[in-house]
Amino acid sequence: MTTPIVKNRFGPVMGVREGQIFENRMALSLAGVHAPTQNGISGTQVVGCDSIVLNGAYSDEDHGDLIIYSGENPRGGSGTDDQLLVGGNLALKVSLDNGLPVRVTRGSGTAGGPASGYRYDGLYQVVRISPNREEGRIVWRYRLEKLYQSLPAEVQEPGATERRLMISERIVRDANLAARIKKLYDFSCQVCGESLPSPDGPYAEAAHIRPLGAPDDGPDVEENLLCLCPNHHKLLDNGGLVVDKDWGVRLVVDDRIIGTLTLKPRHRLTQENLQWHRERWLTT
Amino acid sequence: MTTPIVKNRFGPVMGVREGQIFENRMALSLAGVHAPTQNGISGTQVVGCDSIVLNGAYSDEDHGDLIIYSGENPRGGSGTDDQLLVGGNLALKVSLDNGLPVRVTRGSGTAGGPASGYRYDGLYQVVRISPNREEGRIVWRYRLEKLYQSLPAEVQEPGATERRLMISERIVRDANLAARIKKLYDFSCQVCGESLPSPDGPYAEAAHIRPLGAPDDGPDVEENLLCLCPNHHKLLDNGGLVVDKDWGVRLVVDDRIIGTLTLKPRHRLTQENLQWHRERWLTT
Repeated sequence: MTTPIVKNRFGPVMGVREGQIFENRMALSLAGVHAPTQNGISGTQVVGCDSIVLNGAYSDEDHGDLIIYSGENPRGGSGTDDQLLVGGNLALKVSLDNGLPVRVTRGSGTAGGPASGYRYDGLYQVVRISPNREEGRIVWRYRLEKLYQSLPAEVQEPGATERRLMISERIVRDANLAARIKKLYDFSCQVCGESLPSPDGPYAEAAHIRPLGAPDDGPDVEENLLCLCPNHHKLLDNGGLVVDKDWGVRLVVDDRIIGTLTLKPRHRLTQENLQWHRERWLTT
Repeated sequence: MTTPIVKNRFGPVMGVREGQIFENRMALSLAGVHAPTQNGISGTQVVGCDSIVLNGAYSDEDHGDLIIYSGENPRGGSGTDDQLLVGGNLALKVSLDNGLPVRVTRGSGTAGGPASGYRYDGLYQVVRISPNREEGRIVWRYRLEKLYQSLPAEVQEPGATERRLMISERIVRDANLAARIKKLYDFSCQVCGESLPSPDGPYAEAAHIRPLGAPDDGPDVEENLLCLCPNHHKLLDNGGLVVDKDWGVRLVVDDRIIGTLTLKPRHRLTQENLQWHRERWLTT
C-alpha cells in the first residue's frame, strides 16, 4: 500500500509512521517525507511549505509539540545578513495563510532528535511568523504547534488506512486551488472588493461555502470556493450573510442586500453550494 | 500539589492526567474537571464553555480526536423542540469565538467511553458550529478537534509540572478579559468602527498587540488588548498596520494614516506594547 492519500504532497505520507527513523536525507527524500536532500525547508512560495527538517544548524527552540523555527539565510549570504521573506521563508508564510500542515523531521544534530539519522515526528501547523532583530540582523521566526495527537503505534502501520484517512481529511485542502482562486480575484474580496494591504503583498482568504469535513462534508473544489476578506469570510461561516440566486449578497440579521458577488468568467461557481448554505442559515 | 494553573477554570486541571477514570459525576465535579453534576455542558454565555461530558444521550459522532457534538435541548422542552442558541449551546459558541480549550470527558454510556465511570480525555477546540435541521427540528452541532497530542504517561504525573505549564501557556488566555474589552467597545473595531452583524449578535475579536506565548511572550492583560474586526486584527498580526505615538493608525505598505485609534477612558491602554509592535514591524 504505497498510494499517497495527500493532495499536492501535504499531510501524512502513507506507509510512513510517526517516530519512524531514516538513515539519511536521501532515504527521507525517497520515502516522500522531505523531498530536498539539503534544504531544511521543502516547498515553494506558490503552494506553501509541506515539510521542514530540524538539525540544530539554526537557533531553533524545540519544546517538542511547540517549535520556534528560524528561517533560512539568503542564498549565498552569510549568517550575518538579514534573512529575506523569499524562497523557503515565504513558503512557510503561505502555509500559515492557507492553514496547511507541515511535516516535521528531527535530525540527530538537534537536541530533541534521534541518536542517529532522521526521525519523522508528525504534522505541525504554523501559527505565527515574525521578523526579529537579533544581533543586528533580521531573523524570521516561525511558531509551529503540533497539529494533533500521535496515533498509537498499533494503528500507524500501513495496513491501518481507515483511521489515517479520517485524520487526513480533517486538515488537508487543495493548496493549488486556494492559491488559484485568490490570484484570479487579485486578492480582492468578492463581496466588498477590499484587499488587505500586507507588507508582503495583498491578503485575502479562500473560503469554502459548504465547509470541508464532518459534519458538512463540503467538496474541496472551485465550485465551493470564494475569495473573501477575513470579515466577509467570518460572516459567511457564521451565517451572517448568504448569497441569493441572483448573486445578491444579503445580510441575514436585517435582510439587507449589501451588494452583488463579483464573479470572474473563469470561476466555475454554481448555485449548488450557495443553495445549501442558504438552506443552512435561513431556516433558523 | 492541587494549585490550579488555569485562569478562569479553562485548560488542564493540575493533578488530573489524561485517561484518568472517575467513579461518578460527583467525583468528576470535585476534581475540578466538570463542575455541574447533571448538565453535559459546563460554562456560561459570558466566559464560554470549559468542559463537556459525552455520555451517549445525544446523537454525537465520536471519532476519537474528532467529535461532532450535539447541543442541549431547551430547558423543560422535549427532544422534538428546536434547540436554541442559549445557555450551554451559546457557551460553546463563545469558546469557538475566543479560541478557548474545552475539556472532554467520556462516560461509560458512550461507545468510545470506559467500561464504567467517567474518563477525562484531554483538551479539544471548537472549530465550527452550525444549526442543522434534523427530523423536522433544529439541532446545533459542534465540531471539536483534539488540541494537541497526549503527553506520555510518565510526564503526566502531578509532580511533572514544568512540561504541563509550558503546554498550558500555549492556549489558555483570560476569557473574562477578552469579553470585557469587546463589551467595552460594543463589539466595534477600534480602527474602523465596524461591527460584524452576525445572527447571534455583533462580532469582534480581542487582539493581543504583543502576541502571547513564545517567542514574543506578550502579557495577557488589558494593556495588551485591542477590540478589532477580523480584517484589522489580521493586519495588526501580519505587520500591515502600526499605531503611532499619537494613536494614529498607519498602514505600513504606503505609510498612510487611515485614522485614529478609538479609545474608551476605561481601557487602560499604554504605549508600551504598541511601541514593541512598531519596533517589530517598522525595522524590516
